[in-house]
Amino acid sequence: MSGLTHFDAKGDAHMVDVSDKAVTSRIAVAEGYIKMAQETFDIISEGRAKKGDVIGVARLAGIMGAKKTSDLIPLCHPLPITKVAVEFTQDPGLPGLRIEATVKTTGQTGVEMEALTAVSTAALTVYDMSKAVDKAMEIGGIRVVLKDGGKSGRYEAS
Amino acid sequence: MSGLTHFDAKGDAHMVDVSDKAVTSRIAVAEGYIKMAQETFDIISEGRAKKGDVIGVARLAGIMGAKKTSDLIPLCHPLPITKVAVEFTQDPGLPGLRIEATVKTTGQTGVEMEALTAVSTAALTVYDMSKAVDKAMEIGGIRVVLKDGGKSGRYEAS
Amino acid sequence: MSGLTHFDAKGDAHMVDVSDKAVTSRIAVAEGYIKMAQETFDIISEGRAKKGDVIGVARLAGIMGAKKTSDLIPLCHPLPITKVAVEFTQDPGLPGLRIEATVKTTGQTGVEMEALTAVSTAALTVYDMSKAVDKAMEIGGIRVVLKDGGKSGRYEAS
Amino acid sequence: MSGLTHFDAKGDAHMVDVSDKAVTSRIAVAEGYIKMAQETFDIISEGRAKKGDVIGVARLAGIMGAKKTSDLIPLCHPLPITKVAVEFTQDPGLPGLRIEATVKTTGQTGVEMEALTAVSTAALTVYDMSKAVDKAMEIGGIRVVLKDGGKSGRYEAS
Amino acid sequence: MSGLTHFDAKGDAHMVDVSDKAVTSRIAVAEGYIKMAQETFDIISEGRAKKGDVIGVARLAGIMGAKKTSDLIPLCHPLPITKVAVEFTQDPGLPGLRIEATVKTTGQTGVEMEALTAVSTAALTVYDMSKAVDKAMEIGGIRVVLKDGGKSGRYEAS
Amino acid sequence: MSGLTHFDAKGDAHMVDVSDKAVTSRIAVAEGYIKMAQETFDIISEGRAKKGDVIGVARLAGIMGAKKTSDLIPLCHPLPITKVAVEFTQDPGLPGLRIEATVKTTGQTGVEMEALTAVSTAALTVYDMSKAVDKAMEIGGIRVVLKDGGKSGRYEAS
Repeated sequence: MSGLTHFDAKGDAHMVDVSDKAVTSRIAVAEGYIKMAQETFDIISEGRAKKGDVIGVARLAGIMGAKKTSDLIPLCHPLPITKVAVEFTQDPGLPGLRIEATVKTTGQTGVEMEALTAVSTAALTVYDMSKAVDKAMEIGGIRVVLKDGGKSGRYEAS
Repeated sequence: MSGLTHFDAKGDAHMVDVSDKAVTSRIAVAEGYIKMAQETFDIISEGRAKKGDVIGVARLAGIMGAKKTSDLIPLCHPLPITKVAVEFTQDPGLPGLRIEATVKTTGQTGVEMEALTAVSTAALTVYDMSKAVDKAMEIGGIRVVLKDGGKSGRYEAS
Repeated sequence: MSGLTHFDAKGDAHMVDVSDKAVTSRIAVAEGYIKMAQETFDIISEGRAKKGDVIGVARLAGIMGAKKTSDLIPLCHPLPITKVAVEFTQDPGLPGLRIEATVKTTGQTGVEMEALTAVSTAALTVYDMSKAVDKAMEIGGIRVVLKDGGKSGRYEAS
Repeated sequence: MSGLTHFDAKGDAHMVDVSDKAVTSRIAVAEGYIKMAQETFDIISEGRAKKGDVIGVARLAGIMGAKKTSDLIPLCHPLPITKVAVEFTQDPGLPGLRIEATVKTTGQTGVEMEALTAVSTAALTVYDMSKAVDKAMEIGGIRVVLKDGGKSGRYEAS
Repeated sequence: MSGLTHFDAKGDAHMVDVSDKAVTSRIAVAEGYIKMAQETFDIISEGRAKKGDVIGVARLAGIMGAKKTSDLIPLCHPLPITKVAVEFTQDPGLPGLRIEATVKTTGQTGVEMEALTAVSTAALTVYDMSKAVDKAMEIGGIRVVLKDGGKSGRYEAS
Repeated sequence: MSGLTHFDAKGDAHMVDVSDKAVTSRIAVAEGYIKMAQETFDIISEGRAKKGDVIGVARLAGIMGAKKTSDLIPLCHPLPITKVAVEFTQDPGLPGLRIEATVKTTGQTGVEMEALTAVSTAALTVYDMSKAVDKAMEIGGIRVVLKDGGKSGRYEAS
């Protein structure tokens, strides 16, 4: 047994049967960052105040991206998402933006893919909006920070 | 002038006017990786041969993700994509998978967002299919490697 | 406190957390109209009988539009819609068509956005199908007529 | 002949054949408004500055809505949109917001449906984000202001 | 060489590179049928006149389905469709409905998948709308009748 | 009374009200086939082993297609699908592939349309991936094999 639940006994991909899992409150938090040139960081930070709100657009893209998760990820179950929030922190040390997404549902399976998709889409949108001044930005550190509410119990990243 | 083309003179977001840009052949290549536990790496490598093809599913997700780019990224232009390929390399040193996506179009604007979205969606799909055995996987190194064919000339990552 | 629930304490947009709201039966009714030239009105009225069913196509577009609401409206929750009906009334006084949409769900938040989107999409479709003969049509009067079933109680337009 | 191009000789709906139309630069401008209570107007105006940017979210929704037009309107052709801009004007006389959308393409058919859909989606989003304080808002005045670039010549609303 | 163009030299799936193919006028015609009980056939035939237009709804679904082809079929290229028409013929001999879809584009690859998807979606919609009276309906005979306009020349089904 | 539930008393199409139906476990199984030339059959069979996995791609397309059902079929209700599996059997007698899809939900209405859409999308994908070598393939035999779990009881195809 490989432990990979998305394959059946013959090794064929399928959408895992969650029919018998309980409908419970579930939450997941994911994070990531986008690293950029100092000058780009300055433009985005400043822009937030008055020249164009890169972060505002990227936040919205992240929220909407979470809603598209089951359309993007082939074997994901569609879920009635009950909350999405995407937070940005300006980190001068990178320099760049740190992104954290929190997603909740009341459903039969977890929302870590939704949280990861929100972070990833938000980061891609920052790239898109800033690429005219900086093509070398890099997206990284995308991982699950917290997952709770299902049968498999609480997971916290170390 | 902030240099951020996705905002107009008042700082409001808009979709950049590309009406007067030439229709040319364009290409973009992006890369990224997903890092995992040694045991997960072994399962995926082995699985490819017989227990369930994580990489095959993720490749397809990446290709389909490229087609959804203008739906995911708020200010991206819809483009008639003419080619998408997503390559995986097993890197025992990470350990994990390296992903490279190549996208082409004949259009009025570049396809680097499509290539980045393909890489990102492929990586998220690897996460989804392997999360039953490894929740701590991390996605990173997502960046543009090559972009060519438009007015702004050739860009190659250093 | 601004009272705008789609922003958090810092003023950032988010999808409101409805995790703790009860799953109840909810209904919303919205209305609107599309005003047109007398000649256009005559063609549509007559066409319904034999020359092409503008209203039939627009009704279907409205129903399908309701299902796309959470994809169109950035901070809307996805909801398991349980009923959509779109009614047209020919109003010679406008002249034009009056549209009323009724949407139901059994969920954690209301369906007034779904009803408004159904009306709006139906009206846009009438415009699309008739624009070859009348570009000056105008869509208006789009508002919520009734909303019931949630914690905030019954709302009826005055 | 009814003049309704979306029906064939038998009166059946079809997507009009534009294969032989020239690929030309096309533009369309549409407008509309959302009327609200004075207090709501004050919150949105003020909010723009610091409590939550309703207009910023609605602008983005309008731009993304334009890209979904051929998915929403049954007989619309998919088009490679080359520009979308959505402008808001605060009109204390309504009181409310006036919305104007400009869409361009280089294609075989016009973009007035894209402009109308942008206005309509932007207005619906204002409703969604403000409905917690005002359920009686009304959307109206949605019409085409300008259309140019195709065989049928320039249209300007009177 | 297997001749399957959707796989590269290593046997991995990819979206075929059509960048160098000429932009030409292309057409495809596909057909299929849905077979049903005599009583169902009578209801649909009669209904068309006055009790509910199953065929009108299915025709629209087929047209809209053609526009979703590149979203449904993993390795299909997105194409600017320029025409879609879906014809129904009542065939008392089946008994049932024969469906024929014609799709055109001006693009770099053919539209036979769009025509097949239109037929298939139209047939599924007839099933959906009639399943309350007949669960045993069967969809079949879905094939390409004609394809023309590309480098590979004209194909006509024998 | 026509018995067609998707029309109201006036004969207008609507999405049936399922608000009062019980939330129960539901299952549906559908089947179909795609018939091809002997040579095509051999390539696909062999390809599965090493030259390109047509069946693997088509299986994924079928699973993802099931999730798009309410977007494709105009009057279908959106449903929280809890399982999708798509099985292929190589049938040398056709020659061709037999496809069977199983879909489950815990909801207020059945999933036979989801199962039929999975079969149909999987078959269309086989066509797409093999059309370079065989344009005469034919899709048929698409029907519901089993439906269970709702008020109307168990249905098994004879």
